[in-house]
Amino acid sequence: MQEHDSASSRPVGTALMGTERHPPRPTAPPGDLTTAVTDPGRELLTVLARHLPRIRAAAGPNDRDGTFPAETFHDFGRQGVLGATVPAELGGMGVSGLHDVAVALLRVAEADASTALALHAQFSRGITLTYEWRHGPPPTRELAERLLRAMARGEAVICGAVKDHGREVTRLRPDGSGGWLLSGRKTLVTMAPIATHFVVSAQAPVDGGPTLLYAPIVARDTPGLSVIHGWSGLGMRASGTLDLAFDNCPVPAGDVLERGSVGAVSDASLAGQAISSVAMLGIYAGVAQAARDLAVDTITRRSASPPSAARTLIAEIEARLYTLRAAASGALVAIDELSPRYDMDPDERGVRMMTPFQCAKLMVNELAAAVVDDCLTVVGGATYAAEHPLARLSRDVRAGRFMQPYTYADGVDYLSAQVLGLERDNNYVSIRATRPPDSR
Amino acid sequence: MQEHDSASSRPVGTALMGTERHPPRPTAPPGDLTTAVTDPGRELLTVLARHLPRIRAAAGPNDRDGTFPAETFHDFGRQGVLGATVPAELGGMGVSGLHDVAVALLRVAEADASTALALHAQFSRGITLTYEWRHGPPPTRELAERLLRAMARGEAVICGAVKDHGREVTRLRPDGSGGWLLSGRKTLVTMAPIATHFVVSAQAPVDGGPTLLYAPIVARDTPGLSVIHGWSGLGMRASGTLDLAFDNCPVPAGDVLERGSVGAVSDASLAGQAISSVAMLGIYAGVAQAARDLAVDTITRRSASPPSAARTLIAEIEARLYTLRAAASGALVAIDELSPRYDMDPDERGVRMMTPFQCAKLMVNELAAAVVDDCLTVVGGATYAAEHPLARLSRDVRAGRFMQPYTYADGVDYLSAQVLGLERDNNYVSIRATRPPDSR
Amino acid sequence: MQEHDSASSRPVGTALMGTERHPPRPTAPPGDLTTAVTDPGRELLTVLARHLPRIRAAAGPNDRDGTFPAETFHDFGRQGVLGATVPAELGGMGVSGLHDVAVALLRVAEADASTALALHAQFSRGITLTYEWRHGPPPTRELAERLLRAMARGEAVICGAVKDHGREVTRLRPDGSGGWLLSGRKTLVTMAPIATHFVVSAQAPVDGGPTLLYAPIVARDTPGLSVIHGWSGLGMRASGTLDLAFDNCPVPAGDVLERGSVGAVSDASLAGQAISSVAMLGIYAGVAQAARDLAVDTITRRSASPPSAARTLIAEIEARLYTLRAAASGALVAIDELSPRYDMDPDERGVRMMTPFQCAKLMVNELAAAVVDDCLTVVGGATYAAEHPLARLSRDVRAGRFMQPYTYADGVDYLSAQVLGLERDNNYVSIRATRPPDSR
Amino acid sequence: MQEHDSASSRPVGTALMGTERHPPRPTAPPGDLTTAVTDPGRELLTVLARHLPRIRAAAGPNDRDGTFPAETFHDFGRQGVLGATVPAELGGMGVSGLHDVAVALLRVAEADASTALALHAQFSRGITLTYEWRHGPPPTRELAERLLRAMARGEAVICGAVKDHGREVTRLRPDGSGGWLLSGRKTLVTMAPIATHFVVSAQAPVDGGPTLLYAPIVARDTPGLSVIHGWSGLGMRASGTLDLAFDNCPVPAGDVLERGSVGAVSDASLAGQAISSVAMLGIYAGVAQAARDLAVDTITRRSASPPSAARTLIAEIEARLYTLRAAASGALVAIDELSPRYDMDPDERGVRMMTPFQCAKLMVNELAAAVVDDCLTVVGGATYAAEHPLARLSRDVRAGRFMQPYTYADGVDYLSAQVLGLERDNNYVSIRATRPPDSR
Repeated sequence: MQEHDSASSRPVGTALMGTERHPPRPTAPPGDLTTAVTDPGRELLTVLARHLPRIRAAAGPNDRDGTFPAETFHDFGRQGVLGATVPAELGGMGVSGLHDVAVALLRVAEADASTALALHAQFSRGITLTYEWRHGPPPTRELAERLLRAMARGEAVICGAVKDHGREVTRLRPDGSGGWLLSGRKTLVTMAPIATHFVVSAQAPVDGGPTLLYAPIVARDTPGLSVIHGWSGLGMRASGTLDLAFDNCPVPAGDVLERGSVGAVSDASLAGQAISSVAMLGIYAGVAQAARDLAVDTITRRSASPPSAARTLIAEIEARLYTLRAAASGALVAIDELSPRYDMDPDERGVRMMTPFQCAKLMVNELAAAVVDDCLTVVGGATYAAEHPLARLSRDVRAGRFMQPYTYADGVDYLSAQVLGLERDNNYVSIRATRPPDSR
Repeated sequence: MQEHDSASSRPVGTALMGTERHPPRPTAPPGDLTTAVTDPGRELLTVLARHLPRIRAAAGPNDRDGTFPAETFHDFGRQGVLGATVPAELGGMGVSGLHDVAVALLRVAEADASTALALHAQFSRGITLTYEWRHGPPPTRELAERLLRAMARGEAVICGAVKDHGREVTRLRPDGSGGWLLSGRKTLVTMAPIATHFVVSAQAPVDGGPTLLYAPIVARDTPGLSVIHGWSGLGMRASGTLDLAFDNCPVPAGDVLERGSVGAVSDASLAGQAISSVAMLGIYAGVAQAARDLAVDTITRRSASPPSAARTLIAEIEARLYTLRAAASGALVAIDELSPRYDMDPDERGVRMMTPFQCAKLMVNELAAAVVDDCLTVVGGATYAAEHPLARLSRDVRAGRFMQPYTYADGVDYLSAQVLGLERDNNYVSIRATRPPDSR
Repeated sequence: MQEHDSASSRPVGTALMGTERHPPRPTAPPGDLTTAVTDPGRELLTVLARHLPRIRAAAGPNDRDGTFPAETFHDFGRQGVLGATVPAELGGMGVSGLHDVAVALLRVAEADASTALALHAQFSRGITLTYEWRHGPPPTRELAERLLRAMARGEAVICGAVKDHGREVTRLRPDGSGGWLLSGRKTLVTMAPIATHFVVSAQAPVDGGPTLLYAPIVARDTPGLSVIHGWSGLGMRASGTLDLAFDNCPVPAGDVLERGSVGAVSDASLAGQAISSVAMLGIYAGVAQAARDLAVDTITRRSASPPSAARTLIAEIEARLYTLRAAASGALVAIDELSPRYDMDPDERGVRMMTPFQCAKLMVNELAAAVVDDCLTVVGGATYAAEHPLARLSRDVRAGRFMQPYTYADGVDYLSAQVLGLERDNNYVSIRATRPPDSR
Repeated sequence: MQEHDSASSRPVGTALMGTERHPPRPTAPPGDLTTAVTDPGRELLTVLARHLPRIRAAAGPNDRDGTFPAETFHDFGRQGVLGATVPAELGGMGVSGLHDVAVALLRVAEADASTALALHAQFSRGITLTYEWRHGPPPTRELAERLLRAMARGEAVICGAVKDHGREVTRLRPDGSGGWLLSGRKTLVTMAPIATHFVVSAQAPVDGGPTLLYAPIVARDTPGLSVIHGWSGLGMRASGTLDLAFDNCPVPAGDVLERGSVGAVSDASLAGQAISSVAMLGIYAGVAQAARDLAVDTITRRSASPPSAARTLIAEIEARLYTLRAAASGALVAIDELSPRYDMDPDERGVRMMTPFQCAKLMVNELAAAVVDDCLTVVGGATYAAEHPLARLSRDVRAGRFMQPYTYADGVDYLSAQVLGLERDNNYVSIRATRPPDSR
């Protein structure tokens, strides 16, 4: 068995510095999501740092009351944060690396996970619209540019509305004059209180053909659109998560993005799904980090020596936190690497993005929840008060397993199919469209 | 709640390639220990690749019989592998990044963990002697250069002998004419069957002062040195792990490295301890990878659909394997970054190396064992035969928790003391020297 | 390896019934807390069954609003439930086996854990006062009889008030005329909204001697006593858990129970601590059972086949639920066995009660939380709404680890000290009294 | 929150004994498999106790060499142990409760798990043959009586041979004159070195009908039967587990038991499968207990205080061991209760036996392995020697997951189908017969 002696002892007087030659090594260590690796990423962190104290102070009350921190987001708008992921040439801050987006979300989530979750919606939208602006057909590019410029000015706040409410399917049908009419109801739309637009997942059945998938972009003041208050979450209660109802909302043809068809098994779509969601790993890393910091702070203030179980749990907490940050960072860096690889087979690129994301997501969800739980155990009964920060974190951290893509069950299906070479439609929007309504 | 629509759908005909502008991102992604990031590292992988089939074929029989693969190591010597971590200017291959050392060990461990464990001893020695050659006092530099040149030629094979056998402490005493006499017994000396030299941890009590720690380098043919066969491991059975006895072995003064004193609490020594051991994480990642590959291969050959539990376990295996590789990679890259930072406070540098290493080690040990166990469960009863490769892997993987530094218990003490700001002597050689013999 | 053929096949026509001789076997199988094993226990279940629908219906709203179900408890009083554990000769229902108490609490907790937790306070009080009535000195017997008779009539509702609020210690000092004055503040007093009396843990420093521990019984209308609303829990929100303040409350000498002295290491006290708390294991078993039933009910209503992960998790849920019920049942039966064993050494009796209780408590807490978490995962995102029953159960179940005796950290200390033969004061009231206030 | 004061304090001088009235409670507490609950069970423990020192002493060498302890079994034969489960009226010891069989196996497994595993084959055979003797058709009763009487005299040692070797199916075909000819190969036949008879699972295809399942009982000296040495296990290496080959072995019609047909979904067969295997839970409980005792013994001998991680792990070990014993005990008592219930619907009886067994088996396998692993971690590197008792236990304990019925994957399928009401053939002999050979 290998055991080692130390090589670091130095006779007194040995010069520490010298003309070292040492090998090339990764210039930007993946680190553990500690800091941004690009200039725009660093700029974003600097701007956000000014907001963190207020975000942290408001986290408790907003959680208790389920209040969305609208004023924080208005300040974000004024200072360019809502356009952080808009390209610089369109007036944005130009953060395009998901690693750096995740670091920013981690910092915000340490102060308040709900704020980070809502902010992610906007950051993610900037990145996916930038893709449309660069690669879409001309009308889409025009639409994307208009929206991105408005985001950069802090004038557009754009939410995704994906999940149907109950058993009803949200549908788009031709209005007879080249446009569309949208009807249905969506649930779990985050950042909705201040949204100016919604990107809505919708189906349009075609006679004799497959059901087509679309994403109409609907302005908030569109006739027939109503925002429905009512959802109250176990956690993430200040994320402004609401329902939307559409009653024959008119949508111009130019405001509708095509999203393929149901059952068209294409792994290429995995790329967009991974890109638009992977940065959320930073949120759960931030929640775990905040819990760990609270626990350590509490224990070190105590005058008694920590008991055996506290030392053991603190070591496990530290190791798990380190590991979940490494797993998330690995997935983020891998996806950032693959993102510009349009030379690759699109299906392969999609899979090579989604697989590390799903591996990391499964473990981040498990480890972050374990870290927070152990922090409550270490600190003790005081954490069982509704408004104790650790109680809030223990509710917030549980959101991770329900984030798309995928849930735990779908993640198991995806990963096992991938590893074992089984057939599977990996497009979760398509999967959901084909499931019975009671199993979506 | 944030759920997302896909941005990857593209209208047919959209050009995939374009003149992209995308932000700087880490040029050498930390990845997941998939490949080397330096030229010497890549060269080492190329050379090793030629040996892997034979190593893999011999793994089973050598494990059964407890036979060290001496011929493989002789070939390693002829092809420069035993000098892989010797600087190029001394005739070696010049691999100096621990990340790349770990990737090489991972590859070998996929074929046979015992071979990788033994090889690590030599790789680690190359790195620590290079440090002595660059930073030691003149006599030490001379000694180090001599040994390194011999390693590069495949003529020197140098083992560490750290752990005392039983309750006896290995001691060095002056021979009265400027040299030393070494007596004691060491256990768990890996790669011993082909060793030409041993670096032995020893104590020298000083009247009225603290006990000093030394590391005499003892040639195999030194009078009084005997190699004692007898240890038979639960796993890692082909690693050539033996005991050594020293009966007043003469050691010249110039062949003795100073190692500080017992109880001199210095975190600087953590750097050398981390550097000399962290690459072993690659070994356990390799064992887990080999188990996963065997399980996947077996399941995909079966004609029946995999049962629910197999799909769930395969997904968990994939996610855990990904995560343990990410954790190990993160620690390796961090230590490679800090390795040349002689500008830093030595204590801080030591801690900043050891902490990520211990976090990664704790989790790699846990996750790698879980991966292998689940692979046995998925494959079924056939794995319960002594010579099934998965049975071997399940024995090999359990060595990780006993590797220095630290065991699980000491790792918990180290990490919790670090996090909570408790006083602790972090030098495990010193710790061990002060413990009762029955608790080392 | 042992594999077995089936012995149950029967040739057609074989008579199934016969004149069997079979060996004696345990007449009352420990079962898994499925049903009561005594007549009074069965009677209690029958009475409770009538209340369960209303308790279940009120669970959600009461949790949301933090409302104590006072009307339910008034009905309990009218129907003798509040005197369930009062001896029949004093007018009570005569349930004296903790196994049956736990089964009753399990049933109630399936409907609402908060109600069960509050009810436990009364059930436990009946049992401990019965002990005082049987074994106390004459004045204590008289006091106990008076209170027990009032409980049986539904007129006395008696809470424990153990934990000091903040850093202040609740103290008893002589009033100069043979009685006492009580001052201090208690937190986490359950069932307080309807309490008629409080049993308060207090200290009385003695000049030159050890601090003595007392438990004054204080009527709600005592001058100087105020009930302080304000605590809002992460879960168990309808349990009526409040703070109490005592400002020189007069307490007659006859209403004060002696509780030994700080630091008087006596394992005999473990018996009372185990007896007064072990039935709470039934509450957490009930929470886990309710979560499992909700998850199974939801999955079986879905039209799609359950995915692989759902089948795996459902099997794990079933096995863990079975196991935690078996562990709880084992501890309850063991304590019921030892309860009348006054022939034994009191210290040994205390340890032999507390050890299985702590083993079961540690695992019930772990397994019940895992069961509930997995149920949320299986059912999906709908459970993440604040008022989803599974969200409530996931908050309620986490109370278990903070219940006395012991917390996880103290449980680890107790069990390891017991197993390894280390010295330790096992009286948690005494332990707490000697700790710095910030570590209690 | 409920916290409790202690009720056990007693004023000095209070009489401890009194004329107690306390309620009925389970007379034979299920306990935790500590001791037998029937007279024959206690007698068996007494006889076995005399053998334990030798069994314990031989465990290490027999494991190393893969030697079956034939002499121990010869002594068992002389002292009636091999007829322990034979009815007293046929000359046996008359142990018929599975709880007591499991306690006996637990005791033996604490000394040597291999011996216990082999002994289980004989104990189980006694119980299943007793069933045939009582309920079979007249020729079967006669056969069963003859074999049982021989077991009681120590002259018959009867192994099960269930699992086919490789892809070949063991088949029975008519010999043309009323008897049968048996051909095929079986693997993993435990206790084979001393077997006098083998009960072989075989199929007989019928033209135009379902494949019928039979269990011919084949004497060791039957022409065409050969015992094939060669299997060497990861653990359970002294259990005498071998392969058997049958080359047209003649079997008289009267020596063949009918076992239903492939695909005849009948839950009644679960009863026999549960009865014949559930006592093996005692073996894994014994392995875990032995590991715990070794670890505790080692730690308590050390002069240093146990580190934090050791205290935490020891507490976890104690709690898990307690819990796995409780789970096993619960399943055993439940099956003993149901065993004589021929009044019940046979399908329901089968399910009500198998479900607790599978719940307990899943958790016993998980918890016992965790206990043993943690024991190695606590004790340290010394346990990594091939012949360290804890190394042996860590190999032995892993057999549990491969024991029939069921493997982990089949157990998940069974339990989830049961809980969710899914269709499934629960007869594992039938399941295996219908699977592709590469997935059995």
